Amino acid sequence: MKALVYHGPGKIQFEDMPRPSLREATDAVVRMTMTTICGTDLHILKGDLPAVATGRILGHEGIGVVEEVGAGVSRFHQGDRVLISCITACGKCEYCRRGMPSHCEAGGWILGNTIDGTQAEFVRIPFADTSLYAIPADADDDAMVMLSDILPTGYECGALNGSVKPGDTVAVVGAGPVGLSALLTAQFHAPAKLIVIDLDDHRLEVAKQFGATAVINSTDGKAVEKVMAMTSGKGVDVAIEAVGVAATFGICQEIIGAGGHIANIGVHGASVTLHLEKLWSQNITITTRLVDAVTTPLLLKTVMAGRLKPKQLITHRFRLKDVIVAYDTFGNAGRERALKVILTNP
Amino acid sequence: MKALVYHGPGKIQFEDMPRPSLREATDAVVRMTMTTICGTDLHILKGDLPAVATGRILGHEGIGVVEEVGAGVSRFHQGDRVLISCITACGKCEYCRRGMPSHCEAGGWILGNTIDGTQAEFVRIPFADTSLYAIPADADDDAMVMLSDILPTGYECGALNGSVKPGDTVAVVGAGPVGLSALLTAQFHAPAKLIVIDLDDHRLEVAKQFGATAVINSTDGKAVEKVMAMTSGKGVDVAIEAVGVAATFGICQEIIGAGGHIANIGVHGASVTLHLEKLWSQNITITTRLVDAVTTPLLLKTVMAGRLKPKQLITHRFRLKDVIVAYDTFGNAGRERALKVILTNP
Amino acid sequence: MKALVYHGPGKIQFEDMPRPSLREATDAVVRMTMTTICGTDLHILKGDLPAVATGRILGHEGIGVVEEVGAGVSRFHQGDRVLISCITACGKCEYCRRGMPSHCEAGGWILGNTIDGTQAEFVRIPFADTSLYAIPADADDDAMVMLSDILPTGYECGALNGSVKPGDTVAVVGAGPVGLSALLTAQFHAPAKLIVIDLDDHRLEVAKQFGATAVINSTDGKAVEKVMAMTSGKGVDVAIEAVGVAATFGICQEIIGAGGHIANIGVHGASVTLHLEKLWSQNITITTRLVDAVTTPLLLKTVMAGRLKPKQLITHRFRLKDVIVAYDTFGNAGRERALKVILTNP
Amino acid sequence: MKALVYHGPGKIQFEDMPRPSLREATDAVVRMTMTTICGTDLHILKGDLPAVATGRILGHEGIGVVEEVGAGVSRFHQGDRVLISCITACGKCEYCRRGMPSHCEAGGWILGNTIDGTQAEFVRIPFADTSLYAIPADADDDAMVMLSDILPTGYECGALNGSVKPGDTVAVVGAGPVGLSALLTAQFHAPAKLIVIDLDDHRLEVAKQFGATAVINSTDGKAVEKVMAMTSGKGVDVAIEAVGVAATFGICQEIIGAGGHIANIGVHGASVTLHLEKLWSQNITITTRLVDAVTTPLLLKTVMAGRLKPKQLITHRFRLKDVIVAYDTFGNAGRERALKVILTNP
Repeated sequence: MKALVYHGPGKIQFEDMPRPSLREATDAVVRMTMTTICGTDLHILKGDLPAVATGRILGHEGIGVVEEVGAGVSRFHQGDRVLISCITACGKCEYCRRGMPSHCEAGGWILGNTIDGTQAEFVRIPFADTSLYAIPADADDDAMVMLSDILPTGYECGALNGSVKPGDTVAVVGAGPVGLSALLTAQFHAPAKLIVIDLDDHRLEVAKQFGATAVINSTDGKAVEKVMAMTSGKGVDVAIEAVGVAATFGICQEIIGAGGHIANIGVHGASVTLHLEKLWSQNITITTRLVDAVTTPLLLKTVMAGRLKPKQLITHRFRLKDVIVAYDTFGNAGRERALKVILTNP
Repeated sequence: MKALVYHGPGKIQFEDMPRPSLREATDAVVRMTMTTICGTDLHILKGDLPAVATGRILGHEGIGVVEEVGAGVSRFHQGDRVLISCITACGKCEYCRRGMPSHCEAGGWILGNTIDGTQAEFVRIPFADTSLYAIPADADDDAMVMLSDILPTGYECGALNGSVKPGDTVAVVGAGPVGLSALLTAQFHAPAKLIVIDLDDHRLEVAKQFGATAVINSTDGKAVEKVMAMTSGKGVDVAIEAVGVAATFGICQEIIGAGGHIANIGVHGASVTLHLEKLWSQNITITTRLVDAVTTPLLLKTVMAGRLKPKQLITHRFRLKDVIVAYDTFGNAGRERALKVILTNP
Repeated sequence: MKALVYHGPGKIQFEDMPRPSLREATDAVVRMTMTTICGTDLHILKGDLPAVATGRILGHEGIGVVEEVGAGVSRFHQGDRVLISCITACGKCEYCRRGMPSHCEAGGWILGNTIDGTQAEFVRIPFADTSLYAIPADADDDAMVMLSDILPTGYECGALNGSVKPGDTVAVVGAGPVGLSALLTAQFHAPAKLIVIDLDDHRLEVAKQFGATAVINSTDGKAVEKVMAMTSGKGVDVAIEAVGVAATFGICQEIIGAGGHIANIGVHGASVTLHLEKLWSQNITITTRLVDAVTTPLLLKTVMAGRLKPKQLITHRFRLKDVIVAYDTFGNAGRERALKVILTNP
Repeated sequence: MKALVYHGPGKIQFEDMPRPSLREATDAVVRMTMTTICGTDLHILKGDLPAVATGRILGHEGIGVVEEVGAGVSRFHQGDRVLISCITACGKCEYCRRGMPSHCEAGGWILGNTIDGTQAEFVRIPFADTSLYAIPADADDDAMVMLSDILPTGYECGALNGSVKPGDTVAVVGAGPVGLSALLTAQFHAPAKLIVIDLDDHRLEVAKQFGATAVINSTDGKAVEKVMAMTSGKGVDVAIEAVGVAATFGICQEIIGAGGHIANIGVHGASVTLHLEKLWSQNITITTRLVDAVTTPLLLKTVMAGRLKPKQLITHRFRLKDVIVAYDTFGNAGRERALKVILTNP
């Protein structure tokens, strides 16, 4: 089969690879029909995740059709349309049973990381019963792909961890796909104000269409000042960090109101300064989270009910065979005005 | 001044009464500009609440302008536009400090009940600092009146007590004003399905406009059957009782799914049968609540943000001097297709 | 092998039965070393659970040694000492993943109910990986047996569902084994007062030793009066029903304070009267629950830490071969002053 | 009257000051019978809190007898024995009504900070109704003094913010009075393991007597290593920082397990490094809090029930007139083996 293979920093190739087969009784093999590229894939490409071995097929998102299941798989059968979760959950370990499969002892984020992933014609999914979801007959494929990672990430790490409540003032710092996902899902909890901060006017324009009540281009370094003005000097109830660098985490610390929540989504490559000399007395909560994808069933219901419209996150479409072009587009998101790109197979 | 006075079951009169004055340092006197009639007022009129004395001015909702404040009032001043909460909170007792002012040792629901109320030209408000809310300059008066009681009641006793979560299937049994308020505010929590059950097709039509995803006229006795069909036999996640009789509480017990919540809002005049022989093993939660009105600030923010539009609850408008006609209209809600009626003064 | 077999109401026999073998890859066969009798077994014997078929081996509690595991079992191996949960959890269905395996689509309470149980020399355990727990090397066997059902039941349905908080006044109505388990585990949450109500002075004496701060013999019909006196007329914060009849549920309704929780543990055979005409405005919460046994790992830690001493629940010891005598003792608990009886094998 | 007056860094004097009188109708004047010294008082003395003006009477803890109340005080009367909360709460502002009076718009921590405090013969208490607590007739005075600040601080900022649950492994970093308070109150929630880390063997010895299940002297720099060994490499569920320096906050970051909580209590004078490059994916929660003292009623109940024994925190006793000696003792806590010192008046 064909797959997108990582060959070390800066090097990926769409090439022939052996078609995966069942290894464990709990495995399924899925024929991919749609996948996408994640910001994390770009991190891998830059060499930020040295644990990813040369020769690895990338990708941890997508939908497909079950091709084959092991003897231990009871909930899926050949021919079922399935949504692949970015988190593989054994369903048995302490972490899975605590509702934190991101730290599953046998799974977690392994697809396209420590085992071959979804940017391929076929993929092997371990612990299929607890790592796949059935796709309803009348579901829209595009929406389903967004449920693999980006929406649970925005929801769990952002809106839920941030404890967004009705009437809250929420700031989302970073309007990339994950920040926009937080923006969309924060609206499940009826905040009164949703302020989005970014450096890119186009993304801020998109944020407005996605429900932001105010947007701030922080290029001029005045984002903090503006947020404080908008909140009568009190700061926000929830600040969602969706970039992963010190500067944006710093903005969150400066705009957070007493009693507020800073929900970190960003993947950080370096430590940050935490201003405890100011914050120790501010009754704040800071959270971090690798997505657990435990809200996938809930999100699926909201999508099917029409309350969440993930399709709007998709800006570009390619055939899987053009995945290299897709990486280029997604890797130059500003220039290309790209959010999520869809790769269809065949 | 003129006021609507209760003279025993079935007897009310709009008549001259002494204008209220300050009694305690924590009192305010408010000149009413708008008030409304509550279902509870009809209960009083029917004689269901014998504790209400003859000679009492009715009404516990409304907005107005502060006429005078006692020496102990620090947050309001003459001329301030204020929203009157149906719950009077001393702010000091054990219950107030637990966030349950409905059971305030010196307050609770007293307006138009144990002290004179708001269906008058003026009203005395005890513990003004913790029982009034400032009305923002650009707020719509109609919306504000709905925040005195009906919306906090629907939200706290219905949506919040029912723990509505994104993706949930929620049934509201009873589409009167309080049921519709629960319907509106349940949408703060992004349920996937909102089923409304009533005997009146007109009210069900309104429920659809207010966001119901399905409506059921229960006249044929098949509501339970229909809900179970809609939920693949699993029952609903949340059932909100908004009538206050055994039959509707019975429906809630029959449609509630394992792990579900029954949130009672209805004012019950008689005991009901609880089917513990079935429910003991169903992991359900049943809640009751006299509104605490502690969510008024939150609701005010959602109204100001345009996320909640209380105005749609208003069907009729009268001058305060025509309050007797207004009672007749509201008391024949089915015939008149009435939801909330607004009384303006002057 | 020998096993205790149900032959219809009033009839049990300790007799030869085929030794169980693996049926599914996810099964384990466990050689029982200790088991016990549950109040539910007596209900079965009385014919209260007609779903239990003639020929069924009873029992859903106990510990043992893994004899054999199916190919799909990864967490247990032959020779492992294991605790058997009364709840069989597939770990994959909607209910298991919501943390409510009591309603597992393929499991739940099935042992000694719809499949053969633990009052036998051997038992087949479906979904072994998610229905068994490893016993630490230095654990006390007696304590472990109490973790199969009685302690998770008291904790989850009683203390947890009742939301016991530090400083609370808690009443436990019924001082049988399950009430005493609620009493023991409620102490995890530092209540200030723990009142136990029963008809049997001996059990009340035991309750005092188990941490009750006050006990009330309700034979004189004055329990409600006494509790109200003890609470300055305010009622209790939490009332735990641990009997399962209308009278005790009635006491709970009468003693519950505003804002309080009634946590039902009892298995009810008939409906009860719910006094909504009084309770609708009292801001109370009523919960029911079939134990999910999801707190078993937590309880295991508290036992190993010496914070919970389940051994004190055990009053009698028998060999498995004397199980008929054990049933007689446990079935005449008042006369025999029996709480939990231990059955050892061999 | 005599009082302990701050005269700039390093300078305090016990001298004559005008006896306080009522200023607002909501004030009370309390004759102090017992007070104590807080670590924060030492910070003031070192000049760390420049906002504290020269001439200020220090102290924010203690008990006394109401001497006089303003016209607006309804819950206290002359002669009442009262506990003074370190947090002054107006009871009316947004923060008070959100349960966060630490940020009260008119109060918060003001005693001995922005207004005169309790290390004096008399003190004026603003908002007396919501800032004082009645002392039960049979209460122990020593215990009551510990409820002014140290115990609510340990409980709210430590145990509650850390979400200690039954069965948890908890580490308290710092065994000074506040760390020990966290240690005592964490036991309300039945943790399985309570590890205390400090540099002082005497304090660690005390920690053991107070319920620590393991203690670590971190002088050798191996505390992290030891905690990881004690937790099989998984880290702790809750790490409570009770010192306020970068090194101890650093230990918390290194020992926290996936899904764990770091609860900061320490007053930090400088920023710290937050290792988001490691923690972003660890699903952790970090909290800060200036004590709100909203749990004082709860703590009072646990003290009266004998579940919490605050007296054990007291090591030294002085007369108020010897307050300068008391400061010396408390300021050299290591040498003097001092925890809390009691000052009695007269």
